[in-house]
Amino acid sequence: MPSGTLLYAQSGGVTAVINATASAVIQSARARRVRVLAARNGILGALREELIDTSKEPIAAIRALAHTPGGAFGSCRVKLKSLKDDRAKYERLLEVFRAHDVRWFLYNGGNDSADTALKVSRLAREFDYPLACVGVPKTVDNDLAVTDCCPGFGSAAKYTAVSVREAALDVAAMADTSTKVFVYEAMGRHAGWLAAAAGLAGNGADEAPHLLLFPERPFDEADFFAKVRATVERVGYCVVVASEGIRTADGGFVADAGGGKDSFGHTQLGGVASHLAGRVKDALGYKVHWALPDYLQRSARHVASKTDLQQAIAVGAAAVDYALAGMNAVMPVIVRTGEAPYRWTVQPAPLSKIANKEKTMPAGFIRRDGYGITDKARRYLEPLIRGEAPPPYGRDGLPQYVALKNVPVRRRLPDFVL
Amino acid sequence: MPSGTLLYAQSGGVTAVINATASAVIQSARARRVRVLAARNGILGALREELIDTSKEPIAAIRALAHTPGGAFGSCRVKLKSLKDDRAKYERLLEVFRAHDVRWFLYNGGNDSADTALKVSRLAREFDYPLACVGVPKTVDNDLAVTDCCPGFGSAAKYTAVSVREAALDVAAMADTSTKVFVYEAMGRHAGWLAAAAGLAGNGADEAPHLLLFPERPFDEADFFAKVRATVERVGYCVVVASEGIRTADGGFVADAGGGKDSFGHTQLGGVASHLAGRVKDALGYKVHWALPDYLQRSARHVASKTDLQQAIAVGAAAVDYALAGMNAVMPVIVRTGEAPYRWTVQPAPLSKIANKEKTMPAGFIRRDGYGITDKARRYLEPLIRGEAPPPYGRDGLPQYVALKNVPVRRRLPDFVL
Repeated sequence: MPSGTLLYAQSGGVTAVINATASAVIQSARARRVRVLAARNGILGALREELIDTSKEPIAAIRALAHTPGGAFGSCRVKLKSLKDDRAKYERLLEVFRAHDVRWFLYNGGNDSADTALKVSRLAREFDYPLACVGVPKTVDNDLAVTDCCPGFGSAAKYTAVSVREAALDVAAMADTSTKVFVYEAMGRHAGWLAAAAGLAGNGADEAPHLLLFPERPFDEADFFAKVRATVERVGYCVVVASEGIRTADGGFVADAGGGKDSFGHTQLGGVASHLAGRVKDALGYKVHWALPDYLQRSARHVASKTDLQQAIAVGAAAVDYALAGMNAVMPVIVRTGEAPYRWTVQPAPLSKIANKEKTMPAGFIRRDGYGITDKARRYLEPLIRGEAPPPYGRDGLPQYVALKNVPVRRRLPDFVL
Repeated sequence: MPSGTLLYAQSGGVTAVINATASAVIQSARARRVRVLAARNGILGALREELIDTSKEPIAAIRALAHTPGGAFGSCRVKLKSLKDDRAKYERLLEVFRAHDVRWFLYNGGNDSADTALKVSRLAREFDYPLACVGVPKTVDNDLAVTDCCPGFGSAAKYTAVSVREAALDVAAMADTSTKVFVYEAMGRHAGWLAAAAGLAGNGADEAPHLLLFPERPFDEADFFAKVRATVERVGYCVVVASEGIRTADGGFVADAGGGKDSFGHTQLGGVASHLAGRVKDALGYKVHWALPDYLQRSARHVASKTDLQQAIAVGAAAVDYALAGMNAVMPVIVRTGEAPYRWTVQPAPLSKIANKEKTMPAGFIRRDGYGITDKARRYLEPLIRGEAPPPYGRDGLPQYVALKNVPVRRRLPDFVL
């Protein structure tokens, strides 16, 4: 039994399967008799010494985490500066690690979190403290470098493709006398991965979704209007999937999610779907509807991808292996080892190659006209949404998600003002 | 084998299970060797003589309808006036019925469609034409009179409760450093049934959703702000579910779905969720997010309620029975015959008691403070979302929905200009 504590924390936007990673981390560590604490709200909990004793949770609860969306220990949106600029915080971290004998730190998040993990990994050398820091991948945005895909993306992608296929059937049925244009807004501020996944819902020019809008391509309103009109005239209706972060050629966002002010000075929130729907209505006169699933798309554990779930579990287990083997500043990444049949494995990669990088869609994934995905993109995306892994449902017709007790560890240090 | 043709049509907003009703209608009629035509786009297809020969569909396709959302034959939003005011249309209908030997007409829809069915039922007496017209219930709004519930509602209700439960876990995880208030917009222009269903996702004052807003209760913004603030201060975050049709005490909609114009004269679309989120941000300063699932909530066959599916099938089969038995101007309605365990049966009810009526939530279903549901509402709603009935998924990870061939019947009449 290795001596020391493993500290696990969740960071950034949560996903349908980040708790599956947590479940795998805790189960792997328990199997090796390693004590696991979890930080409440990511790195904040480590700084505030708000730690949770996962040994107080029965194994059934830890197993149930694998089918529970959200972030069971709380997450955060916080970025640490460099060791030089934020030295007091790193010293505090070290104090907390020492006080609780933390030898392994697993930070489960996206690009920013990989950066935090990389910085924390430097504590080992800087302060000569025996620490292995492992980043664990997670993001519905699928924009981490090095890894073939990101746990959390496959399930959000499946949600997107399923939802767009279903809504398109609704629109098709009503188009003769009602809505002719439907706009679905997908997450993706800088990368169009989720909008691309919607493309899996149909095939060919006449099957919905008809138009995908990617942040990787400049948005040209006149061209878009022409495409919408041509689709309605040919098919009878038009389903559009827009990435929230599409920009015009001058680099400005088509719609600022933060919104503007109305004539009374009130905040007018709105996204790209509502904006495009309004513009289409004015310019083309069609009846429009739009949907903004927002958090629903990243928490929809009920329609999770089995592939995604398996990968979320695999990176959790690998992270424990790497940490206990003393590997510092690494992240378990997913490597695609076969196309047909799809195969994958998990390997370690240096955090320095992942932190702060952002993987947008390769040009070869976007159709020449900019409004759809290529066969190459389809081959990449399709295995990621494959397989179903529904949660157990109760007699009440609802998924049985677990709420942990989250018993705090007794604090040993004075307060720390962030 | 009864002589004559049964004509089936879908009307109004479609649902996740209206095609299950269609599947039951066609299978029941086939079992009795009755020919079934379907009108394309509801009553419009009957007027335009755009009829579909369902006998051209293999039985596998008809069975697959039971797990396919949308409206397989097309639907419409059209209301006929009285026999007196729209006489030419009724005469045309009669011509079409005669030309295709239509003796039974099944109209599958909500309140407006029940009104159309009632008017068509009068053709029998008015023109001495042997016709049995049966309305078949369907609506996610759950606002039909007489019937205990409406096929389509249970699945939309399940989607709502599941989605709100999942999104709430996301918000809970992030609230410390990110979104504190989340607003989900549910369909329901005049009746708060879907917002009420969200209430099934949690129990007690601290479990999400924390605040439900019903069109049945006047919206008081100051009181709402106070409740939001109190919830955030007590729980750490606040999940709000708003019916699209909430109104202030003076009867005006809180947010017009049609939207207004911005200072450039452009249409500014927006719903109640975006409006409330903006107001909360301005008044209370919290970070807000909101979701507008729109058509997703009524087409989400992937998370359909088994109870709802069974009821959709049962009303389809009953409608064929009633029609072939010569019952005119009736609708099969669902009668609750037991509470624990929940039991139900299907009975005929006169269309005249259903047409144009709207069933809002009983006062006893809304909590005294107006922001939640009572135990009575819970007992009513919970059985309706019970049970899962997922569609088959393909190797590609997507639900396998069927597209019918929809082979048109050769027209026998000249065009009719509507």
